[in-house]
Amino acid sequence: MMQDAGLIALDWGTSSLRAWLLDDDGTVRAARSEGWGIMHLPEGGYPTAYAAITEGWHDRARPAIACGMVGSRQGWVEAPYLPTPAGLAELAGSLVQVETGLGTLRLVPGLLEAGDPAFPDVMRGEETQAVGAMRRLGGDAILVLPGTHSKWARLAGHRLTGFETLMTGEVYALLSKHSILGRGVADAPEGSAELRDAAFARGVLAAQDRGALARLFSSRALMLTGAIEPSAVLDYLSGLLIGEELRLASPILQAGDPRVALTGDGRLCARYERAFEIAGYAAPERVDNSALQGLVDIAGAAGLIVPTQLQPSGA
Amino acid sequence: MMQDAGLIALDWGTSSLRAWLLDDDGTVRAARSEGWGIMHLPEGGYPTAYAAITEGWHDRARPAIACGMVGSRQGWVEAPYLPTPAGLAELAGSLVQVETGLGTLRLVPGLLEAGDPAFPDVMRGEETQAVGAMRRLGGDAILVLPGTHSKWARLAGHRLTGFETLMTGEVYALLSKHSILGRGVADAPEGSAELRDAAFARGVLAAQDRGALARLFSSRALMLTGAIEPSAVLDYLSGLLIGEELRLASPILQAGDPRVALTGDGRLCARYERAFEIAGYAAPERVDNSALQGLVDIAGAAGLIVPTQLQPSGA
Repeated sequence: MMQDAGLIALDWGTSSLRAWLLDDDGTVRAARSEGWGIMHLPEGGYPTAYAAITEGWHDRARPAIACGMVGSRQGWVEAPYLPTPAGLAELAGSLVQVETGLGTLRLVPGLLEAGDPAFPDVMRGEETQAVGAMRRLGGDAILVLPGTHSKWARLAGHRLTGFETLMTGEVYALLSKHSILGRGVADAPEGSAELRDAAFARGVLAAQDRGALARLFSSRALMLTGAIEPSAVLDYLSGLLIGEELRLASPILQAGDPRVALTGDGRLCARYERAFEIAGYAAPERVDNSALQGLVDIAGAAGLIVPTQLQPSGA
Repeated sequence: MMQDAGLIALDWGTSSLRAWLLDDDGTVRAARSEGWGIMHLPEGGYPTAYAAITEGWHDRARPAIACGMVGSRQGWVEAPYLPTPAGLAELAGSLVQVETGLGTLRLVPGLLEAGDPAFPDVMRGEETQAVGAMRRLGGDAILVLPGTHSKWARLAGHRLTGFETLMTGEVYALLSKHSILGRGVADAPEGSAELRDAAFARGVLAAQDRGALARLFSSRALMLTGAIEPSAVLDYLSGLLIGEELRLASPILQAGDPRVALTGDGRLCARYERAFEIAGYAAPERVDNSALQGLVDIAGAAGLIVPTQLQPSGA
């Protein structure tokens, strides 16, 4: 076949599976999303999920690439972690192949941060978003990827040189659903947007001195004493936990004038932008579609497609 | 009736109910425990649970007293919070009565810490333990009450003058049972006591600089990289979260030579003692039976029994 920009690109995480079909000229012809994360596969497992999400996309042979937990030890085939620092070249040079029954799928490896052996860290999927964001950001930056497991990554010289994981989203979900902090809150009448924003702001600031764990129980006590409406307690909690990320990053954020960017889910990024504002920091840049952009860039660097023809922003 | 030291004493919390029968001379004649916390009441609710746990103890009229969540808004009858500072006299002067069908039960109020209006805090049950511990400790001290919601209380002039809640036990339970950190850990072959203690110690120290939330995900990454055995991951997590309490208390623990005491569940107190040792602090004193001692002392101060005849240490 003639090489062009035609590509099947997958972001296959723990809880969801997203897929894009890129036309030969690099425009996005179709995008699909299913709840088939690697922990929620349909009967038949990976091959079935792959065939279903790419149905109708095999009219001719196209290269296919995937990032995320699909390449973990619990995934389809393991794509072993690469050590940081790593960028486009290292990732593109270490793709792992899996035969799908509908052609070859290439898996992007995750990254292992072992700069401090006492605190190793790992990522899968975010390395691809980081690569996609690098194209937009160009030079050095701090890239924040909010989520179940938020990542703060340092980009330098077009490589990801270090990162840290904060379990913000998972801790929020557990505390709001299963702890005493969520009790009597779910049934509360919906609060006004102003009240909820004020509670969020209060939480962000409350985390700045001693940290979120020291203030967790105040979520409950502020409700019991009437200082926060039940409907706004979870906003306060969200503020505490996102505020903790800013507390931990404060030495970086307060040093010089770092370039900071956000990428990921739009609503979540907006919450982080508000937290930056509340804590007195400059607004971070927003980078959209970083996962798809990263997949396309890695496929290009690996020679699977012609990189210059890509126009993924048409999605 | 002649007033003597005969008493029915209850520690009635969220998840369990403990009861003691004190003889006329103040010795403990019987002790019972059931899982009937206020969230797990038997059919028939409070009166049924009360009748069952005190069965056979009503051969003659005895005063009865209870501390804990039974006096909360979700409890049998609400015993409104008293503000700190408060001690024996304030608690004994604010008991709330409830008619049980088997005589009057008096409920000890909880405490509200409102010294910093931005971060109110509440306790129910621990105020009674603190009163019981004061008898042993005499002068000023920091009293640590580990648990689902750990409390660090400041005792001064025989009153509890301030306190802080850390949700250590609840956060540990949620993370170990429901988060990614517990995955692949439960089925691991049991580790040696040495390995587990080493992981616990590593966790305590890991929390000291940036706090436990910054290090949570290292529980996972250290297992993935083989640095910690799966069987020891939860010990590391436990060390992180208890270590966070020590991090937060470090300004107090490092100032002068504070008197520090622990009271509560024996195994949990032993874990905290080990954490103090690992972090380089002097061993705290251990105070046993503080809940019963506190109930007896409050009943005495309220004139329900003759305080001087008490011999609760015979339990």
